[in-house]
Amino acid sequence: MAPPPSSTPKTLHVITLVLKVAMFALLLASLIVLVTATATLPVDLFTQLTVHFDDVYAYRYVVASIIIGLVYALLQIAFSIYHFVKGNPLIIGNGGFIVDFCGDKVMSYVLATGSAAGFGATKDLKALADARGLDFDDYFDKAYASSSLLLLAFLCAATLSVFSSYALPKVVTN
Amino acid sequence: MAPPPSSTPKTLHVITLVLKVAMFALLLASLIVLVTATATLPVDLFTQLTVHFDDVYAYRYVVASIIIGLVYALLQIAFSIYHFVKGNPLIIGNGGFIVDFCGDKVMSYVLATGSAAGFGATKDLKALADARGLDFDDYFDKAYASSSLLLLAFLCAATLSVFSSYALPKVVTN
Repeated sequence: MAPPPSSTPKTLHVITLVLKVAMFALLLASLIVLVTATATLPVDLFTQLTVHFDDVYAYRYVVASIIIGLVYALLQIAFSIYHFVKGNPLIIGNGGFIVDFCGDKVMSYVLATGSAAGFGATKDLKALADARGLDFDDYFDKAYASSSLLLLAFLCAATLSVFSSYALPKVVTN
Repeated sequence: MAPPPSSTPKTLHVITLVLKVAMFALLLASLIVLVTATATLPVDLFTQLTVHFDDVYAYRYVVASIIIGLVYALLQIAFSIYHFVKGNPLIIGNGGFIVDFCGDKVMSYVLATGSAAGFGATKDLKALADARGLDFDDYFDKAYASSSLLLLAFLCAATLSVFSSYALPKVVTN
């Protein structure tokens, strides 16, 4: 008889905790880089145009996806540390594994789409700005950096999602 | 003793086959809509500008993700029908379940990012075109339609990915 799912080894706990902390740090860095990205262009002698992240619709979605990811990562880290300190398995019963599975899966999709929306919009908007001779390079480079950090955070989330898939109780085949 | 993973019920086979066919049909429709989307703008009396899908970088990625999805869906349908006709379980041994799990997971990420890149670029490019008084509405509406069909195909892929996660042999906890 196979042992119950609660027998997850302690090393796996440590690996998932490290991944969650890395995901949180990457998301925080991504958020800071994107939110602080601004570009200022002189319109005429007296006026100038300042562009922030919220002037591009896609970046608003990117920021939303990062914030959702940050909240999720923080909750997951808190639960992990609590159970790690108490020496208990991750969550009581099978329900916890299903919640983890769904959460990790949905979160990895949210971060993947956020990163893709960021890259997609930046590539084309930068090309348009270049074609019109506007110097938005610094602004778009920061957007690329933010999307790249988000991509790395997504890789952490995707790896966590693989772990939580393996931890699933086999309700379909049993 | 729990039955081996090969005892997946026949109804589940039918559901996954239907999802794979739906995914294929949605991807094909999405591809046709995006590739046939063109916009023609008069530059002066003698010249006019024609915009295709490959003039937007993000749409090239969308088309690439659709084609990868189409090939994968076709292979999956072929395997499903073959095993359905022969009355065998989906794939021999545990390796097949892991291949299915990885394939479905990666494919769902590819389609999610394709759709997100499409939506992200379309929203901002449409806003820019509107601000400059250019009539690209028909072109961008088709891009939206294509991204929406791709989003539906992603939902099929994500559902398939949930099924293949449950079918995984529990190598970590056993």
